[in-house]
Amino acid sequence: MSNHQDSYDALITQLKEVALLSSCASVLSWDEQTYLPPGGTEHRANQLGLLAGLAHERATAPHFGDLLAELEQDDEVDVADSPRQVTLREARRAFDRASKLPRTLVEELSRVSTLSQQAWVDARKKSDFRQFLPWLEKVVALKREEADVIGFGNGVPYDALLDDYEPGATSADVAAVFSPLRDELVEMVASILESAKHPDISILERHYPVEAQKEFGIEAARQIGFNFNDGRLDVAAHPFCSGFGPGDCRLTTRYNPNHFPGAFFGILHEAGHGIYEQGLDASSFGTPMGESTSLGIHESQSRLWENLVGRSQPFWSYLYGSAQKAFPAALADVALGDFYAAINDVRPSFIRVEADEITYNLHIMLRFELEQPLVSGELAPADVPQVWNEMFSRYFGITPAEDAEGCLQDIHWSGGLIGYFPTYALGNMYASQLYAAAEADLGDLGAQFERGEFEPLRNWLNENVHRRGKQYRAGRLIEVVSGHSLSHEPLVKHLHQKFDPLFEL
Amino acid sequence: MSNHQDSYDALITQLKEVALLSSCASVLSWDEQTYLPPGGTEHRANQLGLLAGLAHERATAPHFGDLLAELEQDDEVDVADSPRQVTLREARRAFDRASKLPRTLVEELSRVSTLSQQAWVDARKKSDFRQFLPWLEKVVALKREEADVIGFGNGVPYDALLDDYEPGATSADVAAVFSPLRDELVEMVASILESAKHPDISILERHYPVEAQKEFGIEAARQIGFNFNDGRLDVAAHPFCSGFGPGDCRLTTRYNPNHFPGAFFGILHEAGHGIYEQGLDASSFGTPMGESTSLGIHESQSRLWENLVGRSQPFWSYLYGSAQKAFPAALADVALGDFYAAINDVRPSFIRVEADEITYNLHIMLRFELEQPLVSGELAPADVPQVWNEMFSRYFGITPAEDAEGCLQDIHWSGGLIGYFPTYALGNMYASQLYAAAEADLGDLGAQFERGEFEPLRNWLNENVHRRGKQYRAGRLIEVVSGHSLSHEPLVKHLHQKFDPLFEL
Repeated sequence: MSNHQDSYDALITQLKEVALLSSCASVLSWDEQTYLPPGGTEHRANQLGLLAGLAHERATAPHFGDLLAELEQDDEVDVADSPRQVTLREARRAFDRASKLPRTLVEELSRVSTLSQQAWVDARKKSDFRQFLPWLEKVVALKREEADVIGFGNGVPYDALLDDYEPGATSADVAAVFSPLRDELVEMVASILESAKHPDISILERHYPVEAQKEFGIEAARQIGFNFNDGRLDVAAHPFCSGFGPGDCRLTTRYNPNHFPGAFFGILHEAGHGIYEQGLDASSFGTPMGESTSLGIHESQSRLWENLVGRSQPFWSYLYGSAQKAFPAALADVALGDFYAAINDVRPSFIRVEADEITYNLHIMLRFELEQPLVSGELAPADVPQVWNEMFSRYFGITPAEDAEGCLQDIHWSGGLIGYFPTYALGNMYASQLYAAAEADLGDLGAQFERGEFEPLRNWLNENVHRRGKQYRAGRLIEVVSGHSLSHEPLVKHLHQKFDPLFEL
Repeated sequence: MSNHQDSYDALITQLKEVALLSSCASVLSWDEQTYLPPGGTEHRANQLGLLAGLAHERATAPHFGDLLAELEQDDEVDVADSPRQVTLREARRAFDRASKLPRTLVEELSRVSTLSQQAWVDARKKSDFRQFLPWLEKVVALKREEADVIGFGNGVPYDALLDDYEPGATSADVAAVFSPLRDELVEMVASILESAKHPDISILERHYPVEAQKEFGIEAARQIGFNFNDGRLDVAAHPFCSGFGPGDCRLTTRYNPNHFPGAFFGILHEAGHGIYEQGLDASSFGTPMGESTSLGIHESQSRLWENLVGRSQPFWSYLYGSAQKAFPAALADVALGDFYAAINDVRPSFIRVEADEITYNLHIMLRFELEQPLVSGELAPADVPQVWNEMFSRYFGITPAEDAEGCLQDIHWSGGLIGYFPTYALGNMYASQLYAAAEADLGDLGAQFERGEFEPLRNWLNENVHRRGKQYRAGRLIEVVSGHSLSHEPLVKHLHQKFDPLFEL
C-alpha cells in the first residue's frame, strides 16, 4: 500500500469527473448531428462552449497539478506499464497539454466549430466554397494558435495537432509509412485500371428499401457483436460513433434507397468503433486504462470490421442468403460472386467515404499533404480549392467538377479536426497487422466467418486491444500484439490477396 | 447610469451561465426520456448528478451573494417591477433557496430521481408497487430533507416544496380555490352521470394510423403557432415539453393507433407549453425576465390550447374537414357534432392524463391531499396504495383494480416532483381567467378559430403573459391581466357553457 493512496484516489476521482463532464458534451454533440432543429444552432454552440470551458477548467486545476507532482515522486510508478504508471503518464500528458491552452481558446474553438459545421453543411449543399471560406479561415487561425501554444520541437506545427489524435506520432513517422504504401497503391490501381475484368456495380444501385436496410444493418451489427442494449443506431447526415460512457454508445448512418453499400458498410464501420467503446473496461471509465489508445487504433477497429470482415467472401457466404431475403427485388437474380465483386470494385472516385479499400488511402494522403502547409501558413485557406483540384488530378487522374465533390466534402475541418485524417490510413495499416496477428493465434478466420462465428475475433480484439486502454501508445501496442513495428506490408499483402484474383492480376 | 452597472452586468453573466449549464442537463433529460438505451441509465444518472451539482455550485457561489448584496443597496431597484428589480428579486429568491441546499443533497436528488424513474417505468409495467416502494421511500426522504433545509413558516413542510413550482403560493392558498371548485365539479359530474345523453366514444377507438396522427398533429401544432424551425416532436412514453433555450424547444407525445385523442390532445398540450417557451424573450434567456412565471402559468398555456381552443366546437369547425381527409377510414362516416361530443365525453376514469376537462381537476385534488401527509410524515410511503384507493373511491365512485391504474400511474414522484401536481389545476383556473380576459380584448375568439385565425390569441398571450417573464408572480400576473384575483369562477363558467348543452343539463 502506497503512502500516496489517498492522493491517487483523489486523482482518479478528478479524472473521472472531467470525463463525466466531457461525456455530457458528447450527448449534446450527438444531438446536434441527429435531432437539433435549425433554430437551435447558436444556443447549442453556447452550451458546448461552456461545457468545453468547464471541462478545461477542471482538467487544468492547480490542485490537479499538485496531485500529479506528488504522485510522480512515488517509487511505485516505476513498474512499467502498470495501470498506475499508465494513469500518471497519460494524466500528465493531458494536464500539460490542456494547461498550455487558455480557457478562452478552448471555448472559442468549441463555439466556432459548432457554428462552422452548420455553415459548412449549407456551403456544401450549394457547393459554395466562398461561403465557407470565412469559417475555414477562423478555424485554421485558431488551430494555428493552438499549435503555437502547445509547441512543437522540430519546426513542424502540424505535429502539435497530430499528436492530439495520435499521441506520440509525428508527421515524419506518418510520411515514413505513407510513402512506401503510396508507391504500392498507385501501382495496384494502375494494374486494376488496365484489367479487362470489372464488376457490374449497377446491382448495388437498385431499389433497397430504407426500412429493410435498417433492419438488415442492425442485424449484421448485432451479429458481429455490437450490443444494442447498451447502444442504438440513428440517422445523421455525416455518420459517426460516439461512446458516451458505460452502457451508452451511439451509432449513426445515412440511408440512400438506391445505394446499398453506403449505409450497410457505414453501419459495420461505426459498429466496429462501437464494439471498441463497448469493450473498454467500464470500471476504468474516465481514466487512461478505460480509454481508447488513439484515433488510429480506433479506426483500425472500424476498418477491420468494415473491410477485413465485412467485405470478405466468407462473411457474405454466411450472410448472403439473408441479404437476398431482405432485398428480394434487388438481389434475387444476383449470384453471390457477382455481389462480392461489386462491393469490392476499385476505381478512382471523388468522395473519400465512398472510396474502395485501395484508393481510400490515397484520399487520406492527399489531405495529409494539404493540411501540413495549411497549418504552417504556407497555404492560404482561400487557395485550398485550387490546390486540392491540382493534387487530385495528380493522384487520381480525374478532377472534381465542383467543390462539393472536392475540398468541401468532409466535415472535419469545419469541426476543428485538422491533423485527424492521417489516423484513417494508419487505422487501415494497424487493422491489417492486427488481423494477421489474430489469424496467427486463432487459425483461419474466414472459415469461422462462414459459420457465422465472429466471437473468437471479437474476444481476441477485446483482450489484445480494447481492455488494454491506453496502456501502450499505438505504435508500441502494435509491436506488443503483432511482434513487429508498424509496417505497410500486412495491408499491401491483404490487398494483393484480395484484389489480384478479383481483377485477375 | 447606475454606479453598479458593472456588478449588475456581472450578475447577469453569472445568471446566464447557470441557466446555460442547466439547459445542458435539459438536453440529457430529454434524451433520457426519448432515446437512451436501457444500459445507459446508470451513466446518465451520474452525468445528470454532476451537472446538477455544478449548476448548484455556481448558483450559490459566495461571489454571487456578494454581488446581490451590493446591488440590493442600489436605489434604482426601487422602481417597482422594473426588469432590474425583478432580476434582483428573483435572483435573491433563487440564491437563498439554493444556498440552503447542500450540494450533496442536490446531486443525490438528481441521481436518485434518474434511477428511480427507471425503476418506476418497470414497476408500473408490472403494476408492482412493492418494487417501486424502496425508491419512493428514498425520494420522499430526500424531499422531506429538502423541505427541512428550505424551511417553512407555518408548520407546513409541503409549502417549502410547493413554493419551488409555484413561487409565493401556499397550500392554504391552493386549498382556498380548490375547495369551492371541488363542490362545483362534484355537482356537475353527478348531473352529467344522470343525463340521458352520452356520446359514442367508440369512434375515437377506430384505426388511426400512427403516421397520419403524427402528420395531422404536427400540422395542428403549426397552425396554433408552434414553430418547428425552432423545435421538434419526438416520441416519449411519458410526454413532456422541454425548452432548452432560444431556438430549441422539444415536444414529445406517444401514439396509440386505436385511440385518437391521446396523441392529438397531447401534442396540442405540449405545443401550448412550447408556444410559451418560444414566446419568451430570447435576449433575456437565463434571467428572470426571460423565464416562465411559474409552473401553474406554464400549465395554463398548455391547457388553454389543449382544451379551451383544441376541444372547442369552432376549432373543429375549422379543422374537421382535414381530419376526415387524414383519417378517412375512421371519420368519413362521422358527423362533426358526434366527433365534437366524443372528444368531450365526461366520466369518472382512473388515468389522470386521459381524464376529461371536469374530472381532471379531481384527480389533481386527490394527489394534493395525499402529498401533504406524505411530506409531513403522517402517511408512510408503504401505505400509499391503500390510501390512494380509498380516496379514489370517495372522489370517483370507482376503485382501481391495480396500482398501475392507481398510485403508480404518474412519473412525478419517481422524478422527485412532489408538490408539483397542484400547478395543473391552478393552470386550468389561470387558463380560463386569461381566456376570458383575452376574449374581452379581442372579441369573439370562437369566430376567429372558425376561420383558422389563432394568431390574435397567440399574440395576446405573448404580450400579456410570455413576454412578461417573471415580472409578476402568478397570482399578481392574473390580477394585472384580468383585473381580478384568481377565482374558480371563470373555469366553472366555461365548463357550464360547454357541457350543459352537450349533456342537455
